[in-house]
Amino acid sequence: MSAAPVRVGVLGCGTVGSAVVRSLLERADLYAGRVGTDLVLSGVAVRSLDSERDIPEEARSLLTTDADAVLERSDVLVELMGGIDPARELMGRALDRGIPVVTGNKQVIARHGADLHARAEAAGTVLTYEAAVLAAIPVLHTVRDMLAGDVITSIRGIMNGSTNYILDLVGREQVPFADALQQASDLGYLEADPTEDVEGLDAAAKVVVLARAAWGVDLAIEDVDRTGIMGLTDADFDSARGTGQVIRLIAAASRHGSGERATVRASVRPVRLSSGDALAQVRGADNAVVIDAESAGTLRLVGAGAGGDATASAVLGDLVGVARELVSARR
Amino acid sequence: MSAAPVRVGVLGCGTVGSAVVRSLLERADLYAGRVGTDLVLSGVAVRSLDSERDIPEEARSLLTTDADAVLERSDVLVELMGGIDPARELMGRALDRGIPVVTGNKQVIARHGADLHARAEAAGTVLTYEAAVLAAIPVLHTVRDMLAGDVITSIRGIMNGSTNYILDLVGREQVPFADALQQASDLGYLEADPTEDVEGLDAAAKVVVLARAAWGVDLAIEDVDRTGIMGLTDADFDSARGTGQVIRLIAAASRHGSGERATVRASVRPVRLSSGDALAQVRGADNAVVIDAESAGTLRLVGAGAGGDATASAVLGDLVGVARELVSARR
Repeated sequence: MSAAPVRVGVLGCGTVGSAVVRSLLERADLYAGRVGTDLVLSGVAVRSLDSERDIPEEARSLLTTDADAVLERSDVLVELMGGIDPARELMGRALDRGIPVVTGNKQVIARHGADLHARAEAAGTVLTYEAAVLAAIPVLHTVRDMLAGDVITSIRGIMNGSTNYILDLVGREQVPFADALQQASDLGYLEADPTEDVEGLDAAAKVVVLARAAWGVDLAIEDVDRTGIMGLTDADFDSARGTGQVIRLIAAASRHGSGERATVRASVRPVRLSSGDALAQVRGADNAVVIDAESAGTLRLVGAGAGGDATASAVLGDLVGVARELVSARR
Repeated sequence: MSAAPVRVGVLGCGTVGSAVVRSLLERADLYAGRVGTDLVLSGVAVRSLDSERDIPEEARSLLTTDADAVLERSDVLVELMGGIDPARELMGRALDRGIPVVTGNKQVIARHGADLHARAEAAGTVLTYEAAVLAAIPVLHTVRDMLAGDVITSIRGIMNGSTNYILDLVGREQVPFADALQQASDLGYLEADPTEDVEGLDAAAKVVVLARAAWGVDLAIEDVDRTGIMGLTDADFDSARGTGQVIRLIAAASRHGSGERATVRASVRPVRLSSGDALAQVRGADNAVVIDAESAGTLRLVGAGAGGDATASAVLGDLVGVARELVSARR
């Protein structure tokens, strides 16, 4: 390739970051073909150099604890540190300098997306985060871009795989609720602090991001009417089963009214669904979302909504898109 | 809005064209907000001025039989005439002059997409056609853009609603095959000449377009290993039912081998699926596609794959995207 390479800096090298680093090295030829020039890994910022990481040997020399140095030598920044700060602060600094940012950080986007978007626009650059909502399930681009000519009326879905695994296990295999919780924890599906999952905070953050993409509204996570799964009892599952229903944790947002007066309501709560409902059939840790739009009708998107590789797929899709734009702008 | 409007010319005013024209007028404020300036309908080219059309009164004065005149006064061309020529010729002329084209014409894209893409690129403009494959089901963008950082291994699905309606009716309601064909015809699901649907030509064209988006290969429709549904008999359906299976017309493409030596095989044929298969559960005239990728895993997209409004949704999504690019390039 004769064109100058696009230098990619990665912040964070956990499960998703490692998967991104591996793909950038192993699929280098593929990406060069798709972008029109090489995507070169310019640095990987980590908190500690000593952690175990599943990355190729050639990437180890690029590990550094100096995130600013990575930012200095990057044309695109990929943020996969998680948590609010310093992730938010580093993204803001990159955007202010006109460096495009790709992130999978739903917490930062849900809480500070409007601010970061404004800074990106002011600097004439872009902020993308398909990976922040349901990994490689293409829901965010669908809502924001592909339905940009349509009017979305509602979005609802199963947006947290850990809780769906638990609810599916209790509903289908009649495992006691407490045992299912333990089993999900043993399998690593729940964090050490499982509050984000079981209290619906993770799903609420995703709904906030989707509502902004669909309707341009700025909801706070606190605006989401939220009930987790910890108040459920085995009696609830028995009662649902007795009427041929299953319990699912449904995250939803819908538009009410139209024009200037339209409002958006969002919720996360356990819902009893008839077993024929498309969302009742979502198994194990899968995720699914149902989008209703005036012209398109009902669209359903289903897949793995989490996991290192699936999340990396969405990050890398955004990255290739951003890199193409950079190459095109150089011409 | 202070910025100059984006002038949209529409070629063709059948079911989809009328739906696009209606939306452009009825949702004018919405689009102005999303694009950053007005989208103004500059003309609608039709074969005959006398046909019945469900469009607002204010659009009637824009109807003309002079497609060239519409092209002359447009910043974006929306092609919805159907058929090969003059659609292909008009699209080519627009692209050569640097005018972006949005189309839903799968036949032209399947047969002449490579040529039209080359002409778009030479002129520094774009050609988009999400509507050409499964209407508003966002499969083309997913395959081409959102999985641009991934390696797609296979795509398979139910890509023709008319034949699925027939197969579902025979399989579920045990209607004799000949009666189901007649019923689909009576409902207007089949064209006067139903060959495109029942011989699998319509699905084959979609697979060709998807294979180009996924792997950059140029298959001809004749390269698709194709068997329609007309050879099926009631005995086939009885036999499938006896083993708990259903028959579906499956369109598929998959990559074999890797790197320079990779080849792509495509087929359209009736397949017996176990009733638990995701594609077995696709009802009536719905469409569905299952995409497998190395990192993303399995993604499923389901919805209405045809119809005036659903197809218009995809056209309008592309149109808003193209118009945003035009506005951004003017700055």
